[in-house]
Amino acid sequence: MRAVILAAGEGKRMRAHFQEPKPLIPLLGIPLIERNIRTLNKAGIREFVVITGKYDKEIKEYLGDGSQLGVSVTYVYNADWEQGNGVSVHAFRQLCRPGERFLLLMADHLFQEELVKEFIREADRLEEGEILLAADNRLNDVFDLEECTKVRAEGGRALELGKQLKEFQAVDCGLFVGSESLLGALSEAINAGKHTLSDGVNILCGERKVKLFFVSGRWIDVDDPPSFKEAEKMLLSGLIPAKDGFISRTINRKFSLRLTKKLAYTRITPNQVTALSFLISLGSSLSFAFGSPIAGGLLAQISSIVDGVDGEIARLKFQKSNYGGLFDSILDRYADFLIIAGMAVAWFAEASSPYALAISALALTGLPMSMLVKEKFHALTGKQYISEEYDGFFHYIPMNRDGRLFLVFLGGLFNLIGPALAILAVLTHLQTIYRLIRIRKFMME
Amino acid sequence: MRAVILAAGEGKRMRAHFQEPKPLIPLLGIPLIERNIRTLNKAGIREFVVITGKYDKEIKEYLGDGSQLGVSVTYVYNADWEQGNGVSVHAFRQLCRPGERFLLLMADHLFQEELVKEFIREADRLEEGEILLAADNRLNDVFDLEECTKVRAEGGRALELGKQLKEFQAVDCGLFVGSESLLGALSEAINAGKHTLSDGVNILCGERKVKLFFVSGRWIDVDDPPSFKEAEKMLLSGLIPAKDGFISRTINRKFSLRLTKKLAYTRITPNQVTALSFLISLGSSLSFAFGSPIAGGLLAQISSIVDGVDGEIARLKFQKSNYGGLFDSILDRYADFLIIAGMAVAWFAEASSPYALAISALALTGLPMSMLVKEKFHALTGKQYISEEYDGFFHYIPMNRDGRLFLVFLGGLFNLIGPALAILAVLTHLQTIYRLIRIRKFMME
Repeated sequence: MRAVILAAGEGKRMRAHFQEPKPLIPLLGIPLIERNIRTLNKAGIREFVVITGKYDKEIKEYLGDGSQLGVSVTYVYNADWEQGNGVSVHAFRQLCRPGERFLLLMADHLFQEELVKEFIREADRLEEGEILLAADNRLNDVFDLEECTKVRAEGGRALELGKQLKEFQAVDCGLFVGSESLLGALSEAINAGKHTLSDGVNILCGERKVKLFFVSGRWIDVDDPPSFKEAEKMLLSGLIPAKDGFISRTINRKFSLRLTKKLAYTRITPNQVTALSFLISLGSSLSFAFGSPIAGGLLAQISSIVDGVDGEIARLKFQKSNYGGLFDSILDRYADFLIIAGMAVAWFAEASSPYALAISALALTGLPMSMLVKEKFHALTGKQYISEEYDGFFHYIPMNRDGRLFLVFLGGLFNLIGPALAILAVLTHLQTIYRLIRIRKFMME
Repeated sequence: MRAVILAAGEGKRMRAHFQEPKPLIPLLGIPLIERNIRTLNKAGIREFVVITGKYDKEIKEYLGDGSQLGVSVTYVYNADWEQGNGVSVHAFRQLCRPGERFLLLMADHLFQEELVKEFIREADRLEEGEILLAADNRLNDVFDLEECTKVRAEGGRALELGKQLKEFQAVDCGLFVGSESLLGALSEAINAGKHTLSDGVNILCGERKVKLFFVSGRWIDVDDPPSFKEAEKMLLSGLIPAKDGFISRTINRKFSLRLTKKLAYTRITPNQVTALSFLISLGSSLSFAFGSPIAGGLLAQISSIVDGVDGEIARLKFQKSNYGGLFDSILDRYADFLIIAGMAVAWFAEASSPYALAISALALTGLPMSMLVKEKFHALTGKQYISEEYDGFFHYIPMNRDGRLFLVFLGGLFNLIGPALAILAVLTHLQTIYRLIRIRKFMME
């Protein structure tokens, strides 16, 4: 399916606050229209038609033929963009292929990837001549309801669209699956002197041909500075992985997301952040070794927070790579080793006992075991290792990296290095042995 | 496709040496007919028809309905089995379905799994009325050529089969894809008083309906004690994985295969062998720690050899499991830790320097890195980590587990514990860093 992106308008309300043309305003480092193209690309769309108007030159200059984004972009210029967005969509008729169904969206509306994927799947169930409209009926949660195009709905179909509707059940998310019938309806509306997209859609509403898809994911119309801020929030909150550790979820992400928000506007890469997190760990290690446990603990916790940022930026800016994943997990292991070694040096300097050595060695060797079990499990079964499912009561002990480094943080802060190492040594190995015993039944049917 | 297994004969030449009926003679712990069923099952065959005669009762008692092997087994009893194997195959006509193609094999011929898979794929290309015969034209390598049924061939088809042929290009491997035409030809032969399978096949040869598939894998007809020994050799040599480490290939396998050959005839499981290997490592660790480096080194090397046996037995006796793979790799890591810790204790007792501690810590932490990189790479890319492809010159340094433990062995033998640990520490970490740098280009296209 091709996607038609409407990027013809002027976006007056943004003009005062940003120097870029609206579709090119960088939101967390990526221009709105580029984010849409990349999100749709992840949902399987390869061909794009961008309808330009006011900022024809700037948009073409930025996107080119799309090859830099790994897609194909062609353009339709609508000189009459000022007449209304219906005229702009109508301009697509010169490129529309017989019987073609196309995704239609506004350059300045942002959608979560999952929402787009579900919407595209739903398109398969359209009947001849029907179009599909993404609508949101969670009216209490819609941002800036007043500005939205409202939808009067009945039985999963739209009866009428309009900004001023008094009675409505949902709002229009600015995402359609259109067909020739939509272009025909727009012709009819334009001939009658009505120039908005809603005017055309309303003709099809009259024929009961506008099916609704009620979204469950998040979306936003980026129209003014407040909605821009809201869009930042929406994208950032979508970065937290489903399987996040307890400490990470309750503490680290609060800080890492702020950092990510700042860093997204710079050119720093995820791998550079990974390296930075490693350097902070090195600082933690040296602090411990040279007798500053508080600094050591703090730096360990900061490094743990920064360790979340690389992945956040990678997901946010479409920079995820397999190499990044490998680089991050190997450097994490080295960072762990360094911090524990620093603590061990500090402990041994104080209590030069063989017990300190043995416990430190146990802690050192316990650190990589969690990752080893999980990755080997994944390689053998092809399934992700799900702690909730396999770990029994150990699931409640936060012994992922975030939990381990938080323990280091506490150990440093209260100068309880020995106990922290002992807990780490015991828990990491207990967890491994426990997993080896428990997981047996899940792997042998 | 169903498989028809011919298990009707008496197998006189084996009778004198084994107490079991020939199809039930355990070869490396698995009866011949069971090995055939399991091998075929791995090649996708689920339904089996076993033609019995002399040992009807014993075979049915052993195989039952096949559910224990995860397949379905039905039986045809041929009371006239003494007349010839053609009569036994002919007995299958009562179960043969219209238009059915079936795999036909002798219970006492063994085939490598890959050979069977290729043969089955080739069956798709048969024309109506044709049958397919697996033949071996590597005449110099055929075991006991005299006893084989010879095949005169031309243009990929058999012209004649017979034990006494003077001129022949290949031998019959005892593996067919048959069809109703074969059963018809057998009727014709039997009516003419000819009772062997070859007699029936020869009628189809006359019609140019016997296509040949020249095998490239290994197979053997287990007919007498020498061929039994040869079959053991064939199966054992097939157990060495393609990506075996240098030390493993040149040293360890020589011993481990002998051990596997002995243990295959016992009821020991792969996981028990894994545990045994771990206990030997523990012995190595304690030997080092208590001042017997030669014993420590020897035990480390023995444990490394035994570490190969679990996988060999698992593959040989169809006992491979995901849990076994996980159990083995985690216990290996613990075994590594123990051995290095034992060496570190020995070294520190002698040269109680911080350098000894630091180098020991480096060696401890370096050990799991190779596995971590490989498993993470696999999880991220879905591809096996291939040392030959990605490791550049490090590929020539035997730093897999076999190589590492061989170094421990040498270190113990010559009482050079410190240097052995130092080499381990440096090489394991250098390898990891080198991989992180080199692998980048393979993962980012």
